[in-house]
Amino acid sequence: MARAHGGCCPWLVLLCGTCNLYLPVTVVNTTVSLAALRQQMQIQNLSAYIIPDTDAHMNEYISQRDERRAWITGFTGSAGTAVVTMKKAAVWTDSRYWTQAERQMDCNWELHKEVGTTPIVTWLLTEIPAGGRVGFDPFLLSIDTWESYDLALQGSNRHLVSIITNLVDLVWGSERPPVPNQPIYALQEAFTGSTWQEKVSGVRSQMQKHQKAPTAVLLSALEETAWLFNLRASDIPYNPFFYSYALLTDSSIRLFANKSRFSSETLTYLNSSCTGPMCVQIEDYSQVRDSIQAYALGDVRIWIGTSYTTYGIYEVIPKEKLVTDTYSPVMMTKAVKNSKEQALLKASHVRDAVAVIRYLVWLEKNVPKGTVDEFSGAELVDKFRGEEEFSSGPSFQTISASGLNAALPHYSPTRELNRKLSSDEMYLLDSGGQYWDGTTDITRTVHWGTPSAFQKEAYTRVLIGNIDLSRLIFPAATSGRMVEAFARRALWDVGLNYGHGTGHGIGNFLCVHEWPVGFQSNNIAMAKGMFTSIEPGYYKDGEFGIRLEDVALVVEAKTKYPGSYLTFEVVSFVPYDRNLIDVSLLSPEHLQYLNRYYQTIREKVGPELQKRQLLEEFQWLQQHTEPLSAGALDPASWASVLAVSTLAILGWSV
Amino acid sequence: MARAHGGCCPWLVLLCGTCNLYLPVTVVNTTVSLAALRQQMQIQNLSAYIIPDTDAHMNEYISQRDERRAWITGFTGSAGTAVVTMKKAAVWTDSRYWTQAERQMDCNWELHKEVGTTPIVTWLLTEIPAGGRVGFDPFLLSIDTWESYDLALQGSNRHLVSIITNLVDLVWGSERPPVPNQPIYALQEAFTGSTWQEKVSGVRSQMQKHQKAPTAVLLSALEETAWLFNLRASDIPYNPFFYSYALLTDSSIRLFANKSRFSSETLTYLNSSCTGPMCVQIEDYSQVRDSIQAYALGDVRIWIGTSYTTYGIYEVIPKEKLVTDTYSPVMMTKAVKNSKEQALLKASHVRDAVAVIRYLVWLEKNVPKGTVDEFSGAELVDKFRGEEEFSSGPSFQTISASGLNAALPHYSPTRELNRKLSSDEMYLLDSGGQYWDGTTDITRTVHWGTPSAFQKEAYTRVLIGNIDLSRLIFPAATSGRMVEAFARRALWDVGLNYGHGTGHGIGNFLCVHEWPVGFQSNNIAMAKGMFTSIEPGYYKDGEFGIRLEDVALVVEAKTKYPGSYLTFEVVSFVPYDRNLIDVSLLSPEHLQYLNRYYQTIREKVGPELQKRQLLEEFQWLQQHTEPLSAGALDPASWASVLAVSTLAILGWSV
Repeated sequence: MARAHGGCCPWLVLLCGTCNLYLPVTVVNTTVSLAALRQQMQIQNLSAYIIPDTDAHMNEYISQRDERRAWITGFTGSAGTAVVTMKKAAVWTDSRYWTQAERQMDCNWELHKEVGTTPIVTWLLTEIPAGGRVGFDPFLLSIDTWESYDLALQGSNRHLVSIITNLVDLVWGSERPPVPNQPIYALQEAFTGSTWQEKVSGVRSQMQKHQKAPTAVLLSALEETAWLFNLRASDIPYNPFFYSYALLTDSSIRLFANKSRFSSETLTYLNSSCTGPMCVQIEDYSQVRDSIQAYALGDVRIWIGTSYTTYGIYEVIPKEKLVTDTYSPVMMTKAVKNSKEQALLKASHVRDAVAVIRYLVWLEKNVPKGTVDEFSGAELVDKFRGEEEFSSGPSFQTISASGLNAALPHYSPTRELNRKLSSDEMYLLDSGGQYWDGTTDITRTVHWGTPSAFQKEAYTRVLIGNIDLSRLIFPAATSGRMVEAFARRALWDVGLNYGHGTGHGIGNFLCVHEWPVGFQSNNIAMAKGMFTSIEPGYYKDGEFGIRLEDVALVVEAKTKYPGSYLTFEVVSFVPYDRNLIDVSLLSPEHLQYLNRYYQTIREKVGPELQKRQLLEEFQWLQQHTEPLSAGALDPASWASVLAVSTLAILGWSV
Repeated sequence: MARAHGGCCPWLVLLCGTCNLYLPVTVVNTTVSLAALRQQMQIQNLSAYIIPDTDAHMNEYISQRDERRAWITGFTGSAGTAVVTMKKAAVWTDSRYWTQAERQMDCNWELHKEVGTTPIVTWLLTEIPAGGRVGFDPFLLSIDTWESYDLALQGSNRHLVSIITNLVDLVWGSERPPVPNQPIYALQEAFTGSTWQEKVSGVRSQMQKHQKAPTAVLLSALEETAWLFNLRASDIPYNPFFYSYALLTDSSIRLFANKSRFSSETLTYLNSSCTGPMCVQIEDYSQVRDSIQAYALGDVRIWIGTSYTTYGIYEVIPKEKLVTDTYSPVMMTKAVKNSKEQALLKASHVRDAVAVIRYLVWLEKNVPKGTVDEFSGAELVDKFRGEEEFSSGPSFQTISASGLNAALPHYSPTRELNRKLSSDEMYLLDSGGQYWDGTTDITRTVHWGTPSAFQKEAYTRVLIGNIDLSRLIFPAATSGRMVEAFARRALWDVGLNYGHGTGHGIGNFLCVHEWPVGFQSNNIAMAKGMFTSIEPGYYKDGEFGIRLEDVALVVEAKTKYPGSYLTFEVVSFVPYDRNLIDVSLLSPEHLQYLNRYYQTIREKVGPELQKRQLLEEFQWLQQHTEPLSAGALDPASWASVLAVSTLAILGWSV
């Protein structure tokens, strides 16, 4: 079904309720598709239909054919839930997307500036009658989300109704983008930490050791099947995955995917012609629900990770046959990289640094000419990455943000809407690459002119936060949540802070935001071999934004007294902007750490630049990694400052 | 029922299974009482009976008549669950109590060195047949604990059976200590932050604002009724509470307690002769379950805090009539002290410091004589506290621990078992008082001789942790969990740590461990007006223990840039032991903080000591609060050290 772009008729503006008085040309006319959807709802006897923003695998990035919420509403932001009743249509999204949603949605839609199931249910209770049925596609709700809807509706005499056929898809019809059909390929052995057979054996051994003796592990996340079988494709943006599920038992391996997408070599690689315990039987993707339901008829116990399993699978397994953890054994195993995976990820970060340094050198020369904008800049850094060995595209949409745009979280420029880079403004680049050996993610913030004292202070405090967390020594199995405040303290000291998390796991040619590693309350405890980003920031609304993000490996720490302690080894190798560092705010320990880090950058990236004849970049690297000293404060004056401060300490007058 | 103390017959030792070969004389013979309990179980057709360690109000300290687990097992430790089947009897407790349990339990009992419901249920599944009934007293399981048993037993074909009459009580019979009957008295107005009428109005206003429009608040925790009505008694040890429940609606106040314990003045104070919305109707304590059940028949919604409500109340309220939060509105309101409550709590800490300082001065003179032991010391500090104005006894059992005993968490000496204090050992005192204006809790660790370098390092790192957390500036509404690592970092740096939490809330003549304030994951976010202890430590098994505990008020912080930030104001006023501080480990900021704190101690406690003619103590205070300097490092040599370290930072060789 085709829809015309354009606002609702101007003479109807007064009827538009919460609509803007002047509807922008960017809105999408959804009247016809909404009417068709309501017809489908009527057939199913529904009072309301929920349209979430995700797909059947809880992917962070979803393919166009899964962008149902965007298609039915016109609003293309990545987060937001739509609900349609027979009379109204509404979208709930967070502050990042309010402006965009208002620009894109026509008068059929009302925007709710809230998130979570509670406000949606509160609204539903006023909009639909007692006895009303609320339909949803069970493959688009995680178990947790379904439970929260279910709980919120309990006792309200409104009923959640699981409907397998997606009603938006029925309306979308032949206009809906087709199922991906590019080949699914096996990674070369050089780029894998273990063979798929070793990984399968590892998971089976965890099943055997499990107290509840599961008979099978069911994998629903695409990164799980990609990791387990060392297979990749490009079904969704930025992540090299393919639509699939897997059911692994002691005696069989069932991979639910589109068989026609495997070459004969890949089928051989998977031993897919036999039926033994180390043979992968490929079954059609569309069969997964029926197959699981059939398997669940036996005397079985199916182990799932609840975070990535949808209600569509969950509802066909009797509760007493479920063994649930938040994360599947594959997610938990994948989180800890073995030594080969560590070496691969590190190597990809060295080449990634080359691309970023090439871009920074180029910017330094070209920004003063006034010819660079955020979008052309983003294209160039993507191009530089693309020229690196083993490159497989960006790992997420490049955030290239100048001046006040950098204060908007998740801002990305477009060809149409972007800002010119200038020596008078700060510039934030948050970008990463997919390489066959690893996934990267790095943020640097720079200023080519004269930053204000406040910009330097904020930048330096963000840097101190990055250093304080990176150099922290902490007991094995400490949760990230318990230590993330070290990245904030230097900001807190003066009343500054940032409103996002401090870091996330990252994969080997997998997700750039790889759960369950990180610093949030729902992340698992830190363990040797995990990789996480460390990314404090500071954002001044309407003025500028700072973020300094590195990827770090969790390693053992050597402590004065024996014990099982960990610390971080940073594996991102791009120097910080000297122009923005206020050295007087750094302690001797910070300077020592920073100079060590710069030495490591020289050792790792220097030879790579020389090998590639990138001599200008090599020169730049040497300059930008010169050891920092206390600067204006030479040792003698520093001593006198300290003598004064010591005297102050001795006295009462403070 | 009386039981003889003494082990099982020596010639039966070989039959005793997990029993010690030589049973100590401290064991209790439980054969007769166990047989009687099993008879009761048979009447109820039970395969097993659970005997928890708590009472009907989830009190931290329980009265003797509630010590059912101790009475039936012989094991008197404060934590541990017993389960009796027709053939076996077992206790689960944590490592603090293993030795004690082995010393006190006879061969009828097996000790399981585990905690939580999972190991208990695992054991139950092997011990009782399919179809077996597991009995419990619903008033002795919190909702959460009941749910975890219920969940663990699901699908196992064993059934949890709630039995209102406690079977241990039936066996205990007339030997069971009687119901307390001391008067329940109203606090003088000088010692309350608000009248009970103001508090009731405050709770009602929260009910009205609540989205789910509860019609009543049900209070099950004794600290809730004590706080709400400004009433006190002494039904349980260390906490000035009385057995009670309250049901508060918009139009009525029902207090379930023993009416005969109220004087006519107190009844008048409570307006208990009228029936209006500001009249307290006193109903008998034993009627609470029936009354709640009757109330729940109406069109009502009862708001409870699940942490302190037992299954005995929960099971009589239909689920759809419950409004649940982890903590009731009374617990949440009580956590934030108003300005009068803050002033009262601070005042009690000044007098408490006088008692502790008197004790420390006395120890300094008497320990070298070799006449002081842990128990006589504990008695003396309790006596000194008792001599302070408004004193109402200790707020918990004094931990007075010398040398290796201080490494045992929760160690308390007894008249029979204690250690002599010595100038060769460290001594840890963790104690507190109940005063009409406030509850106190402070820990100091001292050494009167020559501590080892390691002892000084460990002490100083604990002190740094205390200072780093106390001086931290953090955003309003930060959870304690997010910042408690600041109290650990100086220890972590060298591979040291401590195995307990970092702090807990404290009340105004209420609980010494007052939830929900603190630094653990189940504590609520920090807010201005809360009080918490800050108590890092370090424990070297078999050698010594260090803990430095202060109580601090959460106050607004003034930051360079405007924002809503908090920090701590320490209100415990006893100096740390200078003999144990390695000044070279302290930064200028630590010294500055410490000297400011010492100045405050002089200002607060000095005049109090002078007023009381405690001149020796005043002298001691002056000495122990002399400003600390960098010590051996005078400003000049410090400068040279820093010049050297600066040079080191400038070079690559690190």
